[in-house]
Amino acid sequence: MTQESAGEPGDGDGDSVVYDLDADCTADDVERNRPYLAEINGIVDYGVFVDLSESVSGLVHESVLEGTFRVGDELVVELESVRDNGDMAFEPVDTEGYELEDVSHDYSLTGTNRLEANVGEQVHLEGEVVQVKQTGGPTIFHVSDEYGVVPCAAFEEAGVRAYPKIEVGDVVRITGTPEHRDESVQIEVDGISILEGEDADDARERIEASLDSRAEPHDVDPLIDWPAFEKLRPSLREVAKLLRRTVLEGRPIRVRHHADGDGMCAAVPVQIALERFISEVHEDENAPRHLIKRLPAKAPFYEMEDATRDLNFALEDREKHGQQLPLLLMLDNGSTAEDVPAYETLAHYDIPIAVVDHHHPDPEAVEDLLDAHVNPYLHDEDYRITTGMCCVELARMIYPDLTDELRHVPAVAGIADRSKADAMGDYLALAEEVGYDEDRLRDLSEALDYAAFWLRYNSGDQLIQDLIQIDGNDDERHRELVSFFADRARAEVDEQLDAAMAHLEHEDLDNGAHLYRIDVENYAHRFTYPAPGKTTGEIHDRKIEETGDPVITVGYGPDFAVLRSDGVRLDIPQMVSELEAEVPGGGVSGGGHLVVGSIKFVKGKREEVIDALVEKMEDAEIDEALSSAAPIDD
Amino acid sequence: MTQESAGEPGDGDGDSVVYDLDADCTADDVERNRPYLAEINGIVDYGVFVDLSESVSGLVHESVLEGTFRVGDELVVELESVRDNGDMAFEPVDTEGYELEDVSHDYSLTGTNRLEANVGEQVHLEGEVVQVKQTGGPTIFHVSDEYGVVPCAAFEEAGVRAYPKIEVGDVVRITGTPEHRDESVQIEVDGISILEGEDADDARERIEASLDSRAEPHDVDPLIDWPAFEKLRPSLREVAKLLRRTVLEGRPIRVRHHADGDGMCAAVPVQIALERFISEVHEDENAPRHLIKRLPAKAPFYEMEDATRDLNFALEDREKHGQQLPLLLMLDNGSTAEDVPAYETLAHYDIPIAVVDHHHPDPEAVEDLLDAHVNPYLHDEDYRITTGMCCVELARMIYPDLTDELRHVPAVAGIADRSKADAMGDYLALAEEVGYDEDRLRDLSEALDYAAFWLRYNSGDQLIQDLIQIDGNDDERHRELVSFFADRARAEVDEQLDAAMAHLEHEDLDNGAHLYRIDVENYAHRFTYPAPGKTTGEIHDRKIEETGDPVITVGYGPDFAVLRSDGVRLDIPQMVSELEAEVPGGGVSGGGHLVVGSIKFVKGKREEVIDALVEKMEDAEIDEALSSAAPIDD
Amino acid sequence: MTQESAGEPGDGDGDSVVYDLDADCTADDVERNRPYLAEINGIVDYGVFVDLSESVSGLVHESVLEGTFRVGDELVVELESVRDNGDMAFEPVDTEGYELEDVSHDYSLTGTNRLEANVGEQVHLEGEVVQVKQTGGPTIFHVSDEYGVVPCAAFEEAGVRAYPKIEVGDVVRITGTPEHRDESVQIEVDGISILEGEDADDARERIEASLDSRAEPHDVDPLIDWPAFEKLRPSLREVAKLLRRTVLEGRPIRVRHHADGDGMCAAVPVQIALERFISEVHEDENAPRHLIKRLPAKAPFYEMEDATRDLNFALEDREKHGQQLPLLLMLDNGSTAEDVPAYETLAHYDIPIAVVDHHHPDPEAVEDLLDAHVNPYLHDEDYRITTGMCCVELARMIYPDLTDELRHVPAVAGIADRSKADAMGDYLALAEEVGYDEDRLRDLSEALDYAAFWLRYNSGDQLIQDLIQIDGNDDERHRELVSFFADRARAEVDEQLDAAMAHLEHEDLDNGAHLYRIDVENYAHRFTYPAPGKTTGEIHDRKIEETGDPVITVGYGPDFAVLRSDGVRLDIPQMVSELEAEVPGGGVSGGGHLVVGSIKFVKGKREEVIDALVEKMEDAEIDEALSSAAPIDD
Repeated sequence: MTQESAGEPGDGDGDSVVYDLDADCTADDVERNRPYLAEINGIVDYGVFVDLSESVSGLVHESVLEGTFRVGDELVVELESVRDNGDMAFEPVDTEGYELEDVSHDYSLTGTNRLEANVGEQVHLEGEVVQVKQTGGPTIFHVSDEYGVVPCAAFEEAGVRAYPKIEVGDVVRITGTPEHRDESVQIEVDGISILEGEDADDARERIEASLDSRAEPHDVDPLIDWPAFEKLRPSLREVAKLLRRTVLEGRPIRVRHHADGDGMCAAVPVQIALERFISEVHEDENAPRHLIKRLPAKAPFYEMEDATRDLNFALEDREKHGQQLPLLLMLDNGSTAEDVPAYETLAHYDIPIAVVDHHHPDPEAVEDLLDAHVNPYLHDEDYRITTGMCCVELARMIYPDLTDELRHVPAVAGIADRSKADAMGDYLALAEEVGYDEDRLRDLSEALDYAAFWLRYNSGDQLIQDLIQIDGNDDERHRELVSFFADRARAEVDEQLDAAMAHLEHEDLDNGAHLYRIDVENYAHRFTYPAPGKTTGEIHDRKIEETGDPVITVGYGPDFAVLRSDGVRLDIPQMVSELEAEVPGGGVSGGGHLVVGSIKFVKGKREEVIDALVEKMEDAEIDEALSSAAPIDD
Repeated sequence: MTQESAGEPGDGDGDSVVYDLDADCTADDVERNRPYLAEINGIVDYGVFVDLSESVSGLVHESVLEGTFRVGDELVVELESVRDNGDMAFEPVDTEGYELEDVSHDYSLTGTNRLEANVGEQVHLEGEVVQVKQTGGPTIFHVSDEYGVVPCAAFEEAGVRAYPKIEVGDVVRITGTPEHRDESVQIEVDGISILEGEDADDARERIEASLDSRAEPHDVDPLIDWPAFEKLRPSLREVAKLLRRTVLEGRPIRVRHHADGDGMCAAVPVQIALERFISEVHEDENAPRHLIKRLPAKAPFYEMEDATRDLNFALEDREKHGQQLPLLLMLDNGSTAEDVPAYETLAHYDIPIAVVDHHHPDPEAVEDLLDAHVNPYLHDEDYRITTGMCCVELARMIYPDLTDELRHVPAVAGIADRSKADAMGDYLALAEEVGYDEDRLRDLSEALDYAAFWLRYNSGDQLIQDLIQIDGNDDERHRELVSFFADRARAEVDEQLDAAMAHLEHEDLDNGAHLYRIDVENYAHRFTYPAPGKTTGEIHDRKIEETGDPVITVGYGPDFAVLRSDGVRLDIPQMVSELEAEVPGGGVSGGGHLVVGSIKFVKGKREEVIDALVEKMEDAEIDEALSSAAPIDD
Repeated sequence: MTQESAGEPGDGDGDSVVYDLDADCTADDVERNRPYLAEINGIVDYGVFVDLSESVSGLVHESVLEGTFRVGDELVVELESVRDNGDMAFEPVDTEGYELEDVSHDYSLTGTNRLEANVGEQVHLEGEVVQVKQTGGPTIFHVSDEYGVVPCAAFEEAGVRAYPKIEVGDVVRITGTPEHRDESVQIEVDGISILEGEDADDARERIEASLDSRAEPHDVDPLIDWPAFEKLRPSLREVAKLLRRTVLEGRPIRVRHHADGDGMCAAVPVQIALERFISEVHEDENAPRHLIKRLPAKAPFYEMEDATRDLNFALEDREKHGQQLPLLLMLDNGSTAEDVPAYETLAHYDIPIAVVDHHHPDPEAVEDLLDAHVNPYLHDEDYRITTGMCCVELARMIYPDLTDELRHVPAVAGIADRSKADAMGDYLALAEEVGYDEDRLRDLSEALDYAAFWLRYNSGDQLIQDLIQIDGNDDERHRELVSFFADRARAEVDEQLDAAMAHLEHEDLDNGAHLYRIDVENYAHRFTYPAPGKTTGEIHDRKIEETGDPVITVGYGPDFAVLRSDGVRLDIPQMVSELEAEVPGGGVSGGGHLVVGSIKFVKGKREEVIDALVEKMEDAEIDEALSSAAPIDD
């Protein structure tokens, strides 16, 4: 109970103190042997009824009363007795001079961590409103305090917004009763008030301090000892903190990722880590389903089509469910200039963006648009630190208990993206420890790629989790499944190459490299596995192995070409710029880096563009250290 | 209380009247000091129990009884007393000759407008059943009376149809208790009976008169003074009445519209007006979501694919939710012969169709299939009165409070469709008053087109509403968003045209016009913004401006061509007919009007078709007044 | 009440018997005038409290007690009285030598067939757990006993798995109270225990025997007398039993079928029969919606894409709803080697597969992968017994009450697939009896094909059911609808052929047959009705009729060809094998049988492949009996 002096403090002259209950005081605020100021609100034969506050009132029996009274008169009383039914009786207290002291209601707060223990009892809670969902019945305020987020149902009239002044972002004090409701614990609201001034500042500060400390990622020991990787750790930690903080604030998260093996090895662990963390934080058991969604991107960058749809869904969720706009997490994509239009679209809304990618970045193009950006190239490392490797550590920082389920994942990611990192050996050894030899890892990588192709941009949550075998069991079945998928994938690659290899055109370039060209539109099956990019990559790999020389491979369709080079420095962005100028009306555009890339052009200028391209390759510098082993975006 | 003479009226011979309660009478129907006919149903030591109706019974104490009685005997009694617990006591009344008068139960009706005030109390309601939804639990009858529509839940057995004889269209009397239920007010049904004969006729007439008067659109002052437009107003008013009536009858509405700027400026205001009107009419707060759906059409007409899907969804909603089949509202499409097959499909079902369009109509083809049809050409006006302009007025007639949010919309619609209406000046001025200068309007038009393209036939409700800024706020953010989208759109048009312009083929026709041809398949990027139709239009516009002469532009792909003409009268439907005959096996079909249109053909006959087409153009009449500024369907 | 002797049976030496209640006994197990062993658990002034079991206890009043007692002492007592509030009083019984006899709690079981009659009363139930769904609130165990399946809700803590050891497949004893819940009857669980040892064996045996007998299909009289068909009946009966058993076990069923007329005439009756049977078996009224899903297949075989998606959905349903993995039912597809990769994928999961097909099977390829396989070729019959004919009988075996609604369906199926079965006459006569003359049947067949095309692999449940007119009424409207669709279909075929026929290339083959070739990519409209396969078929049919000679027709696109032959034995699988070898890099693959098939190749080798193909046709054997009337897969 908080007893505060009202207005001026007592002057200590011996006057006795009389307590004056605030209007919101309850019976709990009344103590025995203390004088309280009361007001007469009714007179009956056997005494008078007095009010001490809006909800505290009782009888003063005529036997203890002297004199006459009128309704409205003040009286100083003490508590005499409380009956079982809660009825209170008071008796008058003699006072001459006295000083009033305000008593405010004791709002001792119950944190969201203690609701289960207080089901059925009225509690007080302070927190920040993170979502306001108007249902057809009550209005549901999701309130975040220092411990978690709880839905609070306030009923005004069916479908009518309760407390219409209270909005997301307000700090409020809620009085209500935790109840089990269908899904989980929910507070039935008796009253909400917006905290203002100092109260609000105090609460906000307290919550902020708590959020900040709870957002702090876990300090996890690296899975392997890898100095190069450690350069990225501080910025990964920042992303982990941003994501945990996002969860604590009740903001949804939308994950978009590259639809390939490394992308899935990156996105799935982070998705699961976040789901588990959300479960811990939110009383609403549907929260993991509502607050995180993972979707593969159709293109190897964030297309306007994806961004427009994501934005429209986000706006709909805000409209229908009062959700905050989401944070966008781009994984294994998102570092390049091609992502800029989509990012700029989102920039008109309150949608933070975080990126973890290992493709060659255009930092100056994207940096201003991102709230966090992790990419090995920003630390003088390269694609060999794959996004999957980064994200396994990220997932562990968010939810370390996942560690045991993730030990094989970095190795899969590395194999999927053909990483030649020194650390691959350690990752392979780590995987081996949990039952994954290199063959099984390679199978899993192929299987992921194959399943992703047939899922056609559906997230395929369960099938992919079954393949990656997080939280997995039934080892034998998993082995069989994975090797079945891998074998199918390889058989279909072989079939595709059987058709294609016969049509491969070979040329010895002036610089001594082999150039292979394949018309993937006319000499490969369309709309089936493997897609043109992978088909080109597989041909390229076979030719490297076969020749042992520098090799460039071009797979072209009616209006695109996919490029791979080993041992020759192409600098594809540079080539694209030159072709734009050299082939007017060619509509040339494209992306990539030194040895991997793709080019688009208008159908009618294909020959001219490819001829000009090959001419540039004649002059390209031989550099045997360069390898296209990084993933090719198809 | 209704007291009606039974059978023959009293003959006035001085016989006293004894009242005979109908079986459904309740205690409320019993008045003091009136004799009632009762039947003895039990004999005990201290008296006899009598029944006055199914629910009215009581004791006649032995102290006031004379003689002996048997169960089944009749007795005339008066009310003596009613105890607190509702127990009634009666005393016998002496009667010699008397005349019986039936008392029917006082079903004073509670309208759906007074349910909230009667929550928890039994009420009676009469209305027409507009939907019967069998849930796994109760059966939900949606009942429409003179004031609105309310869901009424009747429970027979879990998942078993209650009152299986009662169907959509029946007029019923419901006794039940309004309760708050999750979403809204719902009546828990105690009983339903079908009204028949005169009762039904009376009720139906009363409801009909009320529906008819409530369906009456609001008389709104025109936004601007425009005599040409006023010719359309009476038929727009009819559509408004039809739509309001549809809502009042609880029938769903499906809106299909042209997926361009004018189409969205037409459909979105009408959608919102209807949503708000539905909210007013229906107690079920989910009604707006269930009763109206808006979808862009993929083609510039109502395709069989869309119709088949709409029909299947409608049948599923009828099956699953007991909904009536919907009304189809076609906006900015729907006036042409191309729509006929789809309309004929729906004609086999109870699906009314209303059209507001400003494309050149084929009235004789569609008229018989439509319940309402507004098109400026039917009033000797033309495309310059855009559908968006019409629909803003339509939306205002439905729900006039929207007016302030719509003042800028006609100008956007006009700019989107390049309307050269005299009234454009007034619309622009009106928009200017609410903060939209011409640049902003033009940006908004481009932004809508661009967003619609990337949404790819998703309705994108929230994003589009955010762009059109109905119910909008945050003006500054809106300006930035719109100009960002507009800039992106223009940049992508420029990029497309950079590739295409170099491949434009020019020819001076004999009639003095310029003919430009562009192969949009080979010299424009595919599957990206802008699509072939818009690409062709943009090239055409540039050439008009550049040359100042009559210009025809043909954008052709493998099996289609898009035509635009300024200053030359092409009469495309005529050309299509001729080509069909002249190119056997060409599979030529198409649509359009004098200066805008598109033609389809089989791939293998492209050259022949286009050569024949150009030949016709050589002879086409120059008419500098003709402009293709109207929207081109792509 | 079950009274069993404990341990050794009494030796009959005159010792009295004292009963010893098992811990789980309730007051219901206590009988008057019987001595029970009790234990003292409390001593008060006025007596001692004794426990007879965990929930049976009461007072022994001091007035009837002699001697002194300590808590823990045993005492033999008899029931003295039971008060209204359930309090029991006991009195001591004198016993000298006695023999203990165990009393187990009387779990007399209430079958799921008697739950409605026991709503609100505690019951016991034994059954097998068939689904465990964790909601945010209680855990829902779906339990199957000898009579049906009922959902049982157990609450541990919101969202927390109750009885985590209990899994799908366990045989359990449930104590709980049937309640109406929203949808249906559900048991609120008081306790669940896993049955073990003999109890489990007994229960399992009892349930198994019951399931087995209830799974037994109905013996239905054949619709017509057709000896050839009777050869298939035993294996159809096996499929019927498998499907009924699957329903009884609560396992979901996924139906995939050929997206043509016969496929729909097969799948829809089976779907409806299963839905009705599910409704009978399952207390949960949503069960039909959750437990069966029908989807047309995109390809004429089970593609990896479909299989991957089906698998992912199945895994998601298991994860989200605790459903068992489904049984896959393939209809009018599924007998061929092309289905093997998809089947092998599912083989890694517990997903049984049943096939009813009439396409030429590859039994050795699929047999090991299937749990049931019906195909006329396996019984020396052929495609003329269509899948629709088989499945009408199958549906009747599952749910014979459907019979009257299905009499016309075999005739539609036969016409759709151009069956030349002798029995067609009988089927036509049967259809005629219920109002379907041959024209109407033919219209319906065309209408189904047309609607399926525009539904584009959406299942279109309601529209298709409306067309097939199962449970149909409004005969006149149905006739009009069907003939409208049929007319549209024919008009669109005519339009397509108008374009195509002019480009038909004719050749007289050495073997005397006519060869017609049509380039359907260049001389037919794309993406519209009819698709290339049907276009080719229609041309072929016209040419057969026109010439009366043996005819081969080839419709080819960029990378595929569709083949039809009448009067010439092509043996397409053989041709494909040869072409694979003869055209290296042609990427040739394909399927079919003697006179109907399709071939795929890479675009760039089209000419070479088709030339080689035609060469083979020159030498093909004339066999006038051979007809391609069977459906062509497009």
